[in-house]
Amino acid sequence: MSAPLPDAVVPGPVLVIGCGLIGTSVALALRDLDVPVHLRDASASHLEIAASVGAGSPDPVESPALVVVAVPPAAVVETVRSALAEFPQAVVTDVASVKGSICAEVTDPRFVGGHPMAGKERSGPMAASGLLFEGRAWAVVPTEGTDPDAVALVERVATSVGAVVRRMDAASHDRAVALVSHVPHLVSSLTAGLLTEAPTDDLALAGQGLRDVIRIAGSDRGLWVDIIGSNAGQVGDILDDLAARLDDLRAAVRAGDGSVAEHLDRGRDGVSRVPGKHGEQPTALGVVFVSIDDTPGELSRLFSDIGAAGVNIEDMRIDHELGRLVGVVEVVVQAAAADVLHTALIERGWAAFR
Amino acid sequence: MSAPLPDAVVPGPVLVIGCGLIGTSVALALRDLDVPVHLRDASASHLEIAASVGAGSPDPVESPALVVVAVPPAAVVETVRSALAEFPQAVVTDVASVKGSICAEVTDPRFVGGHPMAGKERSGPMAASGLLFEGRAWAVVPTEGTDPDAVALVERVATSVGAVVRRMDAASHDRAVALVSHVPHLVSSLTAGLLTEAPTDDLALAGQGLRDVIRIAGSDRGLWVDIIGSNAGQVGDILDDLAARLDDLRAAVRAGDGSVAEHLDRGRDGVSRVPGKHGEQPTALGVVFVSIDDTPGELSRLFSDIGAAGVNIEDMRIDHELGRLVGVVEVVVQAAAADVLHTALIERGWAAFR
Repeated sequence: MSAPLPDAVVPGPVLVIGCGLIGTSVALALRDLDVPVHLRDASASHLEIAASVGAGSPDPVESPALVVVAVPPAAVVETVRSALAEFPQAVVTDVASVKGSICAEVTDPRFVGGHPMAGKERSGPMAASGLLFEGRAWAVVPTEGTDPDAVALVERVATSVGAVVRRMDAASHDRAVALVSHVPHLVSSLTAGLLTEAPTDDLALAGQGLRDVIRIAGSDRGLWVDIIGSNAGQVGDILDDLAARLDDLRAAVRAGDGSVAEHLDRGRDGVSRVPGKHGEQPTALGVVFVSIDDTPGELSRLFSDIGAAGVNIEDMRIDHELGRLVGVVEVVVQAAAADVLHTALIERGWAAFR
Repeated sequence: MSAPLPDAVVPGPVLVIGCGLIGTSVALALRDLDVPVHLRDASASHLEIAASVGAGSPDPVESPALVVVAVPPAAVVETVRSALAEFPQAVVTDVASVKGSICAEVTDPRFVGGHPMAGKERSGPMAASGLLFEGRAWAVVPTEGTDPDAVALVERVATSVGAVVRRMDAASHDRAVALVSHVPHLVSSLTAGLLTEAPTDDLALAGQGLRDVIRIAGSDRGLWVDIIGSNAGQVGDILDDLAARLDDLRAAVRAGDGSVAEHLDRGRDGVSRVPGKHGEQPTALGVVFVSIDDTPGELSRLFSDIGAAGVNIEDMRIDHELGRLVGVVEVVVQAAAADVLHTALIERGWAAFR
């Protein structure tokens, strides 16, 4: 193996401990950058699968420059401590969803807490991809005593695999993920849970709004039990706040008074604060609806015509019955381009509307 | 005007009262079927816009076969009553989101309650489209005394404009929409409302899960205040149930006990009960992820290649930063086709993964 170039992502091999979705994906992404990667997993089959998809070598490594601990939340502290002891020259990072207890319990200057905001509904090494972190946030959570060079290394790795680094302290991180991830997940589960006893006919009226609200409630439960458990304080505080607001809303609904409108307004304000395609610039986007039928190649022809109109697609949504490609495609574009696109599609014979 | 054919959708002209999004869209859809449509609206500008987009004639009509009342919820009962009196031969239907009070207060055999489950984030006649009802449910809500011929006419109209008729009684309808629409909307608003006071940095970690949960909280508030107000009983009952579950969940989170898992399981059960692309057959769908960059025409080329692989797209999602078309496209297909598509895209040079 040749010596690493001075501008290499990592100045030596990387050891990934834990070959689940995230660990294997980090390994694959680093392999794509020609970083030597070694793998370790308590499960021989996980290890074998990860190695067989090209994530790295299952052989032991003597002196890794970086150890990425991607084991289940409950095992992170112990695994990080062992890695720090086993590899006294290595920087060690983790990928757990909650950072408070880990960063409090491990104060070694070579440890840098991390949390890539990436996931999929499937889990395990077979679901892994080196592209998983493309465009995602990656929280990097140093403490006061963390070595700045160690932080720089972890941030370089995160950036190299396509993520956007967000440096923050552990308490801020855990409060933030409780608010933007853990509580919304529980809310989604509670709302979906209301449907379990409903007559089937009632559910026939379900539309896209409901499907959006409950989508994340369909994901893997085991991981979420761990996540909620390890962030119980922050999650509990926000759930208390939510319960108080719900009580106020219930009273307002029963009384038919103006507070219902206030809750709806507060929701709109909240939506407008979320950065990204549905939030930051809500007025800057426009939607063109296009009716399609189930002729093969119809979508391909549509996107070809959109390309020919010189318009970039920001987002899209297909609304149709399962198994039948007939319905309406919502094409989301910059607001200034919506009229142009609408006209161009009409001219090309599409049933398009705004 | 020629006499209507025996198999015409409606045996005479239709009067649409209320030229908002829904009324104007019904009118446009009927005009597309060559049904003569007349329009009426208290707002001269709404009426003029609706007429100018081709939704029908603003001139009075002597004897409509059908009157579609599409006025704001608070004005429905009065407008339906006036229409029944003014046109003693006509069938009268409405499109209001809540049916209990209307169907209790108007017992004329010529009145048939209706509720097309269609909407858009924009409102008003400019946002209308004859394609709005394509593939959507349209609840038809007769009472015991309703003339079966009147019900048949309204169901024929709903089907003709592309909707799927769901016949139900008023109480079932209102309970169903409270459960699948009104309460999820309020939950979405409450969750988004939690974000109003959060530090901006915290929101930088927001991902697609949060955006899905809060999306509908971004919609028009005025209409929703009316809808919630007119279904306060059913909505209040479900919110009480939700509050009890939330209390239980809060206690479970604080105690760190197994009930958190039970709530998550109940949520998964609920998701699996919802018909449609994300619910009915969750295991029958597969996802192929494709990494794209911002080269113009990239999406067009992708969909052309998907078409060439002979695979039908069930749904898709684009995840990328606003204004930059770089990121990952999730292509949802029948599970059996996912491997075929994955292989075909790899062969064509795409960075695709499963």
